[in-house]
Amino acid sequence: MLRMRKIAESTVRRLSLYLRFLEEFEEQGMETVSSEALAARGGTTSAQVRKDLSFFGSFGKRGLGYSVGELVLKLRDILGLGRTYRVAMIGAGKIGSALVQYRGFRNRGFDIVSIFDTDQAKVGKGWNGLVVKDLKELETELRRSPVEIAVIVTPGEAAQGVTDRVVALGVKAILNFAPIQLTVPDDVVVKTVNLALELETLSYALTNR
Amino acid sequence: MLRMRKIAESTVRRLSLYLRFLEEFEEQGMETVSSEALAARGGTTSAQVRKDLSFFGSFGKRGLGYSVGELVLKLRDILGLGRTYRVAMIGAGKIGSALVQYRGFRNRGFDIVSIFDTDQAKVGKGWNGLVVKDLKELETELRRSPVEIAVIVTPGEAAQGVTDRVVALGVKAILNFAPIQLTVPDDVVVKTVNLALELETLSYALTNR
Repeated sequence: MLRMRKIAESTVRRLSLYLRFLEEFEEQGMETVSSEALAARGGTTSAQVRKDLSFFGSFGKRGLGYSVGELVLKLRDILGLGRTYRVAMIGAGKIGSALVQYRGFRNRGFDIVSIFDTDQAKVGKGWNGLVVKDLKELETELRRSPVEIAVIVTPGEAAQGVTDRVVALGVKAILNFAPIQLTVPDDVVVKTVNLALELETLSYALTNR
Repeated sequence: MLRMRKIAESTVRRLSLYLRFLEEFEEQGMETVSSEALAARGGTTSAQVRKDLSFFGSFGKRGLGYSVGELVLKLRDILGLGRTYRVAMIGAGKIGSALVQYRGFRNRGFDIVSIFDTDQAKVGKGWNGLVVKDLKELETELRRSPVEIAVIVTPGEAAQGVTDRVVALGVKAILNFAPIQLTVPDDVVVKTVNLALELETLSYALTNR
């Protein structure tokens, strides 16, 4: 299909929200959906939904709405969800363990192929079906068995150093759970999930009202 | 202390990042820190750091930098981290369970006092030191034992309905893990953590490069 360039991140995020909603509808056996229903789910307007989807060449029929099945396939294709991505996880701790067990990873083709840690008590041991490798071996291992995505689940003070190493190895996508803001070259994408930060913006809002 | 109004969310997020960094420095026994070091951690410039902190009446000494201990106390105060917040969790599933065990909750005074689910196999059973209550009893329970924060860990299709109910009960802060965009009145703060969405923006970026 036609690949559009330079789509705003905010649009991509809405497409992802629409997809979640459509997948639930599909499970419930619904065949069509209106732009109004999608708008409610994406926290936006029906005009915005129509704009977002027409951009990708998808048009609803007046009075009938969009075909749920067709739109699911199209959105999965746009979001790159038909592919498999090789993933290395750095940090064999509790969060890493929860992530490895998270179905959403595998459902989206995120295949965790290696796990690294510095803790010698963990290195060489089994861990969720993988064997923990020594972080010292990162370069050797990722050259032998390259990955497209690195998941950083290290303490904050180790995260930038590990990031620099995976970027030097050619990794272009990073999912960061360490509580810092990573610095990367322009051609590398970083998504940060920082629960501590979300909790603190909530407590700030509750305190300063 | 003086409470400043209308601080931009982006500033609050940087203060939270600085705090993480300062806490690590404090653990390592460091006494002072430069605005440059804080800037590197917050993904910003030293001029921005000085601006952020002077706004709260905190000034480093030229050549000496900021006192780590003093700044930690001040930032914790600004972010409302000296208080205890009563939290209700809606949804007794895997994510909820991981959250209840997350030290960061208790460290920040987030005290989970009740847990609700619709699954009759779970209702009345022990769960991480609490007893799961029937979601039907939400109004009765939260009137008897009010909370300040609701954590929504329900499936997407249930999240807005539950949100409307806690908002009607006077809850002003919501942490949302359901994969939808919640609609709330202006005086309610919502923070959404949506891992599926982060994964999909990553796969989009990898596919469309």
